[in-house]
Amino acid sequence: MSRIKGNAVVFQSGGPSPAINASLCGVIQEAQKHSDITGIYGAFNSTIGLLKENLIDLNKESAETIKAMKYVPSSALGTCRYKVLDRDYERILEVLDAQNIRYVFVIGGNDSMDTADTIGKLAGKRGDIIVMGVPKTIDNDLVETDHTPGFGSAAKYMAVAIMEAGKDVEAIYIKETVTIVECMGRATGWLTAATGVAMRKKGDAPHLVYVPEIPFSTDKFVADVKDAVNKYGGCVVAASEGIKDADGNYLAAKEGSLSKDSFGHVDLGGVGPVLSRIVEKEVGVWSRYNLAGTFQRVGGHIASLTDINESYQVGQAAVKAAVKGITRKMVSLERSKKNGKYVFSTGLVDLSKVANAVKYLPRSYMNDAGNHITGKMRDYTLPLIAGDVPLNRGADGLPVYARFKKSFIKPKTGRIYKFGK
Amino acid sequence: MSRIKGNAVVFQSGGPSPAINASLCGVIQEAQKHSDITGIYGAFNSTIGLLKENLIDLNKESAETIKAMKYVPSSALGTCRYKVLDRDYERILEVLDAQNIRYVFVIGGNDSMDTADTIGKLAGKRGDIIVMGVPKTIDNDLVETDHTPGFGSAAKYMAVAIMEAGKDVEAIYIKETVTIVECMGRATGWLTAATGVAMRKKGDAPHLVYVPEIPFSTDKFVADVKDAVNKYGGCVVAASEGIKDADGNYLAAKEGSLSKDSFGHVDLGGVGPVLSRIVEKEVGVWSRYNLAGTFQRVGGHIASLTDINESYQVGQAAVKAAVKGITRKMVSLERSKKNGKYVFSTGLVDLSKVANAVKYLPRSYMNDAGNHITGKMRDYTLPLIAGDVPLNRGADGLPVYARFKKSFIKPKTGRIYKFGK
Repeated sequence: MSRIKGNAVVFQSGGPSPAINASLCGVIQEAQKHSDITGIYGAFNSTIGLLKENLIDLNKESAETIKAMKYVPSSALGTCRYKVLDRDYERILEVLDAQNIRYVFVIGGNDSMDTADTIGKLAGKRGDIIVMGVPKTIDNDLVETDHTPGFGSAAKYMAVAIMEAGKDVEAIYIKETVTIVECMGRATGWLTAATGVAMRKKGDAPHLVYVPEIPFSTDKFVADVKDAVNKYGGCVVAASEGIKDADGNYLAAKEGSLSKDSFGHVDLGGVGPVLSRIVEKEVGVWSRYNLAGTFQRVGGHIASLTDINESYQVGQAAVKAAVKGITRKMVSLERSKKNGKYVFSTGLVDLSKVANAVKYLPRSYMNDAGNHITGKMRDYTLPLIAGDVPLNRGADGLPVYARFKKSFIKPKTGRIYKFGK
Repeated sequence: MSRIKGNAVVFQSGGPSPAINASLCGVIQEAQKHSDITGIYGAFNSTIGLLKENLIDLNKESAETIKAMKYVPSSALGTCRYKVLDRDYERILEVLDAQNIRYVFVIGGNDSMDTADTIGKLAGKRGDIIVMGVPKTIDNDLVETDHTPGFGSAAKYMAVAIMEAGKDVEAIYIKETVTIVECMGRATGWLTAATGVAMRKKGDAPHLVYVPEIPFSTDKFVADVKDAVNKYGGCVVAASEGIKDADGNYLAAKEGSLSKDSFGHVDLGGVGPVLSRIVEKEVGVWSRYNLAGTFQRVGGHIASLTDINESYQVGQAAVKAAVKGITRKMVSLERSKKNGKYVFSTGLVDLSKVANAVKYLPRSYMNDAGNHITGKMRDYTLPLIAGDVPLNRGADGLPVYARFKKSFIKPKTGRIYKFGK
């Protein structure tokens, strides 16, 4: 492939994460090293920004802000949940051409890798546009990679929260208390299972762990909780928002949901109250639930240093590959051991293999009873949550999370595009 | 008063907090310095342990464990919510006498100060038992003290959580998202108002703050949210679990509650879903809620160093006063300035003045619209959340929270006491 010179665009898709800006930082800082990449633009609010030609000139951001962004949770460029339509791709290419964009970096999950792959396919026909995927999801459900940037930090957030909720239950055992902690994860139980590492020995929280991959039985759950209450005087239950019964019905959806998102997905988020009610009714002990909600995907103050560093390097690797002319690949994370210690390296996998595929928690990572993790899950998770990030603090002692000043570049397509149906 | 020599008992009452064990550590370490205090016993699960003569010999705990306890959240001795009955006090004196206990240290909130005061009154008639109160409550609602141990750490936990939830909403403004964050606080809004410090400038989270002291109007709330969504594209709302309408009805209770606690208190904890539903219905934008639940009262990983150090010294001060023969006092925290900087000192106030009294958030700490804090609340709060604690870490990188080994001393009353109605 001949040498490609031009501008780059980067966008962040899907839900915010504690590590997505670390990847962005890696992309920007690496891109600034390569003369083939002239301008570096950020699509404001992801694909919507691309369609609207709302592009931020990232070279106008200070080096300090870009550097600080490594430890800032959420999505600095903004995100959206817009599903790109077939007819939108023509517009995307129009914007790329008008802005002389020759490098496209997509930071996101499996939906986003599908978008990236489609842009790559269309651009590939012309041979002059490079598209690279940068994985991101706290759900850890991407295939072809050992794990995903963002997972380690969210896992650490929830593991510490559950450990601390365990101290709370411990203090009030005399009251036989069951605390339900609802964790994010509609289809997969990676994040919920990761909280299992907080249990160093029997009796520690979480006492019980339930994931969507294993059909949920209310009878079994009631028996599990009774057993834990008998043994420990109380317990902490970690449950994925997406746990389903043997017929595949969401436990939370059964009770009705408060809302649906604007794309018609059922808004799960009610497993906590559902399980609490079951405990009070069927076990007869007092129960409450904690819903970390969005906190768990933006917990910058307790992010995993390993995760942040890996996320940064994944961003860098995407640019390094792109300037070599490699396209339609996603950077993957590979795990190996050196002197018995965890080490990671980056690899490259076909975007088409990652697009829309889901990696489920292996059955062997959960115990036979399906109510806690095994050593395999512990060994898998612990290296990913290791290390603390250096936090930038304000005079008030609270974290300071940098923001881009956002200098928008001049639109050049000369038209306003109406996206959506 | 003549010199009093004998054993001491300490107990922890009410809900767990991130700082209650720091006070306990202060009590134990100080008590070990004074020869007039011979044994130091911890009542296991608070007043219930005292009534059952379940006493832990704290001199048998290692110096390392006692030292580590300063940074361990929750209540290491266990707690309970048992309301001490009139007939129980005779039993308490029986246990104190049988165990030659001459010093009683009660760490707790206003209910506990009432218990302490009653023990003090009865013991006072005899003149040979010293009773001292050590304040503790994340609610910050004790009178006669500038603030309470535990408040600063819980406030820091929630302020950071809200700040991070704000980053989340910021990223998805294009979707017009309203995140409701429910904060603990049935009667008073101290903790909720404290999250207001996360807003350094207009547009930062929390965008709106609602406390129980100001009657909640749904119409006003809807207008406030519409305004914030118009201005900022989305918003984060901090609301106390105990917000009430102009008639004094709990907003959460109106919708029915999932459960009541075993003492018949309505279990509030439903303000999040209630406000989310109002937003979706009346404002027409997408809304979700986060319920930090018990996390916020045991967030040891992000405790305030100022709070922990003060809590420790409050414990010490109780013992120092007690060995001087001072009784029926609670240690207070007093605020002053030195070279323009916050400094605190401890004082002593009558238990009877603190017992069952409630300190409400002053109206001047909230703005005229009643939907955010003023500079007064900011100035009040910031010094209390300052500084980070040194966290003890395991090989797995997660916090290590010490536990007592709990050596129980031999009961000496020779009878089993049936408490409760």
